[in-house]
Amino acid sequence: MRLAERTGRITGGKSDGWEIYYRTRDMIAAGERVLTLTIGEHDIRTDPQILEAMHKSAMAGNTGYAFGPGKPELRAAIAARVEARTGVPTSWKNVVVTPGGQSAMFSTHMVLLDAGDRALHCDPYYATYPGTIRATGAVAVPVATRSSMNFLPQEADIIAASQGAKTLMINTPNNPTGVVYDRATLEGIARACVAEDLWLISDEVYDTQVWEGEHISPRALPGMADRVVVLGSMSKSHAMTGSRLGWVVAPEPVAEAITTLATNTTYGVPAYIQDAALFALGLGVPFEAQIAAPFRRRRAIAMKALAGANAIRVIPSSGAMYVMLDVRATGMSGEAFAHALLDEERIAVMPGESFGAASAGHIRVALTIADDVFEEAVVRLAAFAERRLP
Amino acid sequence: MRLAERTGRITGGKSDGWEIYYRTRDMIAAGERVLTLTIGEHDIRTDPQILEAMHKSAMAGNTGYAFGPGKPELRAAIAARVEARTGVPTSWKNVVVTPGGQSAMFSTHMVLLDAGDRALHCDPYYATYPGTIRATGAVAVPVATRSSMNFLPQEADIIAASQGAKTLMINTPNNPTGVVYDRATLEGIARACVAEDLWLISDEVYDTQVWEGEHISPRALPGMADRVVVLGSMSKSHAMTGSRLGWVVAPEPVAEAITTLATNTTYGVPAYIQDAALFALGLGVPFEAQIAAPFRRRRAIAMKALAGANAIRVIPSSGAMYVMLDVRATGMSGEAFAHALLDEERIAVMPGESFGAASAGHIRVALTIADDVFEEAVVRLAAFAERRLP
Repeated sequence: MRLAERTGRITGGKSDGWEIYYRTRDMIAAGERVLTLTIGEHDIRTDPQILEAMHKSAMAGNTGYAFGPGKPELRAAIAARVEARTGVPTSWKNVVVTPGGQSAMFSTHMVLLDAGDRALHCDPYYATYPGTIRATGAVAVPVATRSSMNFLPQEADIIAASQGAKTLMINTPNNPTGVVYDRATLEGIARACVAEDLWLISDEVYDTQVWEGEHISPRALPGMADRVVVLGSMSKSHAMTGSRLGWVVAPEPVAEAITTLATNTTYGVPAYIQDAALFALGLGVPFEAQIAAPFRRRRAIAMKALAGANAIRVIPSSGAMYVMLDVRATGMSGEAFAHALLDEERIAVMPGESFGAASAGHIRVALTIADDVFEEAVVRLAAFAERRLP
Repeated sequence: MRLAERTGRITGGKSDGWEIYYRTRDMIAAGERVLTLTIGEHDIRTDPQILEAMHKSAMAGNTGYAFGPGKPELRAAIAARVEARTGVPTSWKNVVVTPGGQSAMFSTHMVLLDAGDRALHCDPYYATYPGTIRATGAVAVPVATRSSMNFLPQEADIIAASQGAKTLMINTPNNPTGVVYDRATLEGIARACVAEDLWLISDEVYDTQVWEGEHISPRALPGMADRVVVLGSMSKSHAMTGSRLGWVVAPEPVAEAITTLATNTTYGVPAYIQDAALFALGLGVPFEAQIAAPFRRRRAIAMKALAGANAIRVIPSSGAMYVMLDVRATGMSGEAFAHALLDEERIAVMPGESFGAASAGHIRVALTIADDVFEEAVVRLAAFAERRLP
């Protein structure tokens, strides 16, 4: 019995890039102490007051089908939040609640792309970008960015890669680089999208984690609201990763198409989780700042610990849960560096190669362990790199 | 800006068949009393002890990412349940937990079908069957069943429709007909699948609601386990519709492919919902019988109330939450009957046409309101039909 050809295409026949993660897991299972800087997940759990709100909703009977685009009050709250943060008029009709940001990403590509269409995405990229595009039957085309330009996507590179593409997906603040796209970069991206008639899919799930400058949504650039789809989520902003509550903000026809698709794919998001999200959004900016604070602190710790390094260039990170380090001065690939660091120091980081060819020779450090242990890890990592200088 | 052609294909450009549902909703919103027999959802909410188990899990910190095929202990519990119910050896590796049965259905078709492939499904069918297949890019092909044969799929009809198809989806106990496929019918389906080399996708979400005879899974027929994918869910068996917890039971390569797809579509199911499902499964057969009991009672009420009808032929329903009535003796279509019944009696039922051409001239009655009101509705429905006899 044969599976669909689609199945083989999703992974592209390649490794999933998580060897370091699996090795780390096995070491920890064997009782070893490994300082783990691999995963983009908070070292706290979802706040109990949010879980109490969820339980209250469930016990009140919100346990039946909640199919469709989401509860109107949650859609309105998300629309109001987006409008407040970006200044772009946003109706609840622009919002579809999805079971997580990943579902928002998949659904958006599903309604914008037919089999064989070209779909651009920035490189380096979050691990699921190419597979998500391939799962829809479209062709995933990376647009390489350059370490020397702080991995900011360039207008000319997008235009060169386009060749009839229908979509471009970007991510600011960026995973894996920690870079926040500035206005000039976003304006260049917008020009390229207009020139090539591309939908711009803007993954903004880290929009509350910005340490320098400001988060700018390309949906707020003049004339762009009609061709931009924003992907959002409660995962990073409210430490609700496991609750799978995301959303799409899109022109109404796209929102309607995603709703139709959802009827045939997931059939809605649990109402009690929607109510928990509504409660969490009501906690406002102070709560979001509190959730973001540890990453702000640890980024500062990393910057200080790596300031005098000769073997490492720190990519100017100003957001998200990561710093990216250029280790090419050691003569090692990101993969070789990561495996050696794990072998010799029991420190786990993700090789840049796991996020695309553009970040080869780099490593990604997640800011997701306690400050003191994080500092120890970065200091030892820096010393390890210096010893590896040729 | 254009959407994908896929988007238009999902609905096939047709009405969604829910006009009666929408009209009913509007009437109720306007303060009218409507006896509503449209929706396949319990008139009870999820049991509080299941919700308490969920809350306990969430408060214990199970709020982080739970990507992958599901928690091993839940996969093992589902495997054990399937094995106990069917006798087919089933490993936890055969099980993938999905966010609802709808997601299980979509994911299965995604990994078995490429764009343009023919995918068969029984007709009449649950509302999302054709759209789910079309969403994958495949071609949905109904296999008509006949009222005169109690809507049991026939081997010859499957073979005639196949023409190179890759899959066939069936549903027993059946929505919308309430029919439970007998062994001879399933053996005929199995022969057709072997002859045409079809994957058999068996939607068994009503498997705990059988009033006569027994539920037989085609996976249990000799030699079929390697070509059958079973779709299951906590929705109907445990009154957990809103929690979106379903599963696939499949040969390991299919389960692995669905896991890879899930990484790129939904990224897992909330761990606390998985823990709630594990708790609920632990309540065992008595709890499932208790959830099913109201439908058993109401089916008996319907059979009694309709026993002497001249205008209505009751399809021999032996399972699920529905009875299907042949109203062709009135000379009316199912749609005309349903609209007139709503207009004149304020009783809402689904027209058979909403579930496919094969059930034209029929109506589906959901067994989902309190016994006394249900009895009133069926008695009035029967009287209405008698008055419509030519």
